[in-house]
Amino acid sequence: MALAPWRTAIARALHQNRSLAYARYLQLATVRVNGLPANRTVVFRGFLEATNQLKFITDSRSEKAEQIQQQPWAEVCWYFPNTREQFRITGGLTLVGSDSQPDLAPARATTWQELSDAARLQFAWPHPGQLRNKDEQAAFKPPLPNPNQPLPNFCLLLLDPLQVDHLELRGEPQNRWLYYRDDQHEWSTEEINP
Amino acid sequence: MALAPWRTAIARALHQNRSLAYARYLQLATVRVNGLPANRTVVFRGFLEATNQLKFITDSRSEKAEQIQQQPWAEVCWYFPNTREQFRITGGLTLVGSDSQPDLAPARATTWQELSDAARLQFAWPHPGQLRNKDEQAAFKPPLPNPNQPLPNFCLLLLDPLQVDHLELRGEPQNRWLYYRDDQHEWSTEEINP
Repeated sequence: MALAPWRTAIARALHQNRSLAYARYLQLATVRVNGLPANRTVVFRGFLEATNQLKFITDSRSEKAEQIQQQPWAEVCWYFPNTREQFRITGGLTLVGSDSQPDLAPARATTWQELSDAARLQFAWPHPGQLRNKDEQAAFKPPLPNPNQPLPNFCLLLLDPLQVDHLELRGEPQNRWLYYRDDQHEWSTEEINP
Repeated sequence: MALAPWRTAIARALHQNRSLAYARYLQLATVRVNGLPANRTVVFRGFLEATNQLKFITDSRSEKAEQIQQQPWAEVCWYFPNTREQFRITGGLTLVGSDSQPDLAPARATTWQELSDAARLQFAWPHPGQLRNKDEQAAFKPPLPNPNQPLPNFCLLLLDPLQVDHLELRGEPQNRWLYYRDDQHEWSTEEINP
C-alpha cells in the first residue's frame, strides 16, 4: 500500500507538536441514531500497520459504538496548537470488538497490550453515562485487567480516510489543501482558498 | 435571565486556561445536507449579553452556513488542556447575517467591531473552499474593511445550549456531570459515570 500524500503533513505536525501530549487528542464527529450530530475527544493511537487508517479505542457500552453501527461515516477535526494547523479527516469507521472480523483481532489485541494500566482499567469501570452511584466507590477500583487479553467491551476503532482538508493558519495569507481519494484508491490534491 | 448552572464551570475553565490562546478554540459538529457529519474548529467569542448563548463568527459563503440553515442542531466539543476537562455542548444554532432578525443586528455589529483588523480582513478574501488562483495573490490583500460596518457575508453564529456534558479527567477516578434544560427552561444536573 502506498502512503497517502497527506501522511507527510500529519507526520510533520505530530513531530513539531510532540512537546504537547494533547496534540494527539482530536475531536470525532458522528451522527446519532436520531440524525443529530455528536462530537467528543478521542486519542490518536497511530496508524494501522500497512494502511492509512487512524487507530482509536472505545468502549462497546458507549453511545458512539451504537451510533457507528448505524452510521459509520465520521469527520475528525484535529488542531495542532504549536504549528497552528487543522486537519479535517472524513471517512468511514470500523468498530473492532470481541466478535469482529478475525483478520483484525491481532490489531485489537496489540492495541490493548500497548495501553497503560490506567487506560485498561477504565474498561473495567461501571457502565459509562449511567447515573453515578456514590455508595459504590469500590466499583471504580476493580482489579487490574489482564494486560494481554482485551476485556470483551474493549473496541479498536479505525477511521479510513476518503478526504482530508488541511488548513495552515500560519502563512501568507493562509494555506489550504484538499486531498481526496477516488474509486481506484488513488489520491488527488487541490490547493483551495482558506 | 438566570445564569445556567454550567456557566460557573465554563468560567472557571476559561480562567484556569487563560495562558493558552487556543483554550478558546473548540470544535463544532454539524450535519451536512447529505446527512453526514461535519466538524471544524471555531473560536469562542463570549456569551450573548443576558443569555446563555455562545457566540462564534462565520462567513455566509462557508459550507457550514448552508448546513445550519438546513439543520440547525449542533454539538460543540471543548477541551481545556491545562485542567484536562471536556465540555460537550448540544443545542440549536442561529445564523445572524445581514438580512437577519433586526433584534440581533446590534449584537452582529458589536461582534464585528470587536474583531481584529486581521480577522475582519478574512471576510474580504475570495470565496472559501474554491480552487485557489495563484495568479491572483492581490485578491488576498484587499483594502481593510470598515471596522464599524460588517461586510454583508459576515455572520454572527449563536449556540443555544439544551444539554451540557462535563467530564473532568482529573479526579478519583474521573468526574462527569450532565446538565439539561426542560421545556420550562429550567436546568437540572445529574452526576453520571465517566
